[in-house]
Amino acid sequence: MGYQEFTIEGRNAVIEAYRAGKPIDKLFILEGCQDGPIMTIKREAKKQDTVVKYVTRERLDQMSETGRHQGVIAYAGAYEYAEVEDILKNAEEKGEEPFIFLLDNIEDPHNLGAIIRTANLVGAHGVIIPKNRAAGLTAAVARTSAGALNYTPVARVTNLAKTIEDLKKKGLWFVCADMEGTAMYELNLRGPIGLVIGSEGEGVGRLVKEKCDMVASIPMRGNIDSLNASVAAGVLAYEILRQRLG
Amino acid sequence: MGYQEFTIEGRNAVIEAYRAGKPIDKLFILEGCQDGPIMTIKREAKKQDTVVKYVTRERLDQMSETGRHQGVIAYAGAYEYAEVEDILKNAEEKGEEPFIFLLDNIEDPHNLGAIIRTANLVGAHGVIIPKNRAAGLTAAVARTSAGALNYTPVARVTNLAKTIEDLKKKGLWFVCADMEGTAMYELNLRGPIGLVIGSEGEGVGRLVKEKCDMVASIPMRGNIDSLNASVAAGVLAYEILRQRLG
Repeated sequence: MGYQEFTIEGRNAVIEAYRAGKPIDKLFILEGCQDGPIMTIKREAKKQDTVVKYVTRERLDQMSETGRHQGVIAYAGAYEYAEVEDILKNAEEKGEEPFIFLLDNIEDPHNLGAIIRTANLVGAHGVIIPKNRAAGLTAAVARTSAGALNYTPVARVTNLAKTIEDLKKKGLWFVCADMEGTAMYELNLRGPIGLVIGSEGEGVGRLVKEKCDMVASIPMRGNIDSLNASVAAGVLAYEILRQRLG
Repeated sequence: MGYQEFTIEGRNAVIEAYRAGKPIDKLFILEGCQDGPIMTIKREAKKQDTVVKYVTRERLDQMSETGRHQGVIAYAGAYEYAEVEDILKNAEEKGEEPFIFLLDNIEDPHNLGAIIRTANLVGAHGVIIPKNRAAGLTAAVARTSAGALNYTPVARVTNLAKTIEDLKKKGLWFVCADMEGTAMYELNLRGPIGLVIGSEGEGVGRLVKEKCDMVASIPMRGNIDSLNASVAAGVLAYEILRQRLG
């Protein structure tokens, strides 16, 4: 488990990596290079929003590990996802009641990284994210997680509502955040718990919300609508920790 | 008060704006334009990390308000800072005991924006930032504040430690976050209070910390060092609100 960076060198290898859907974080291309394969790579880079840097041949030679870069080197990231079972085992090994984060389509990698960081510090046993739409585990996420990605297991599931149902059978309670909910201080958030965090724009989806046992609201005393998703996750997670410690 | 965007059109006007140190958020330059003044503007843009877009003459004509863009239009932001007095008056008018955020050199605009957003939602009366080093109020900050910048006054001061001293004379208590502090749940955080948040890398500076009446720690049960600055600010601010409401 954990996040690792590696390089991909050469035109075909880079094109293949894009076609295979590997997350490429950064691309180094020889200055002035304009031929067909390079143009194909540039198009893919644009589509995937990869950061592109144009560099000299000396720089590429220096970076190259194989000595056969053909004018292009890509930095890619790879993360080995955990299974939901691993997260439960993590709790069991620590002799603690499970405390799991479930993220319903967090799209901003900075928020995703910050939430994984919070999950680690609040003592949660793992994070579950959905396969579709949501941000995956890229270099930006690894960076903003400040190392947490190497400790806190992250599992990816096809259907979050279904996963919640399965985990309920194992004794977990689920709480999600919503402005219409009960003030979080008034809920009993002790015991084996799953904290469901909604997406930045839309909050928690209807299907997922219906599966939750409790809807918690964070008190809002201001003029605007909502907290940043990673701040809201932090505030709720720490309320859970306060009750667990108390 | 509040954040406003405006456009600056024409070569000299844009060069002047850069030289005057105005925060330019985005630059639109006519495609293929390469003469001396444009090259000067591009150099300044690079220095200041301005986003540059190359566009057609039609697009520039469309955007132009004066009709005399000379191939370049800049988007700049302007924020009218509040005074510390305004923040105290804000509390007085609401008949509440002052609750102020003080940010000791937050450098990341996304964190700054998210913290101002939290300050608004937690019912704080204003935010105080230092003049040097720290991030100022740019378009990125306005955006991540999600509108909070239009409601929550932000004052800029030369010397944060001195400002804390002045505010102590007016009855405020100050709490800062530090891992070595007392668990936040055990502190009395009621009454007129200033919450001091340290920078991402270094935490709260020594001089500022010495002025604080209380040092609060957020419980950390994980493997890594610290929460994201805006998450830490949110967790502490909500502990203050919980005690105020209780």
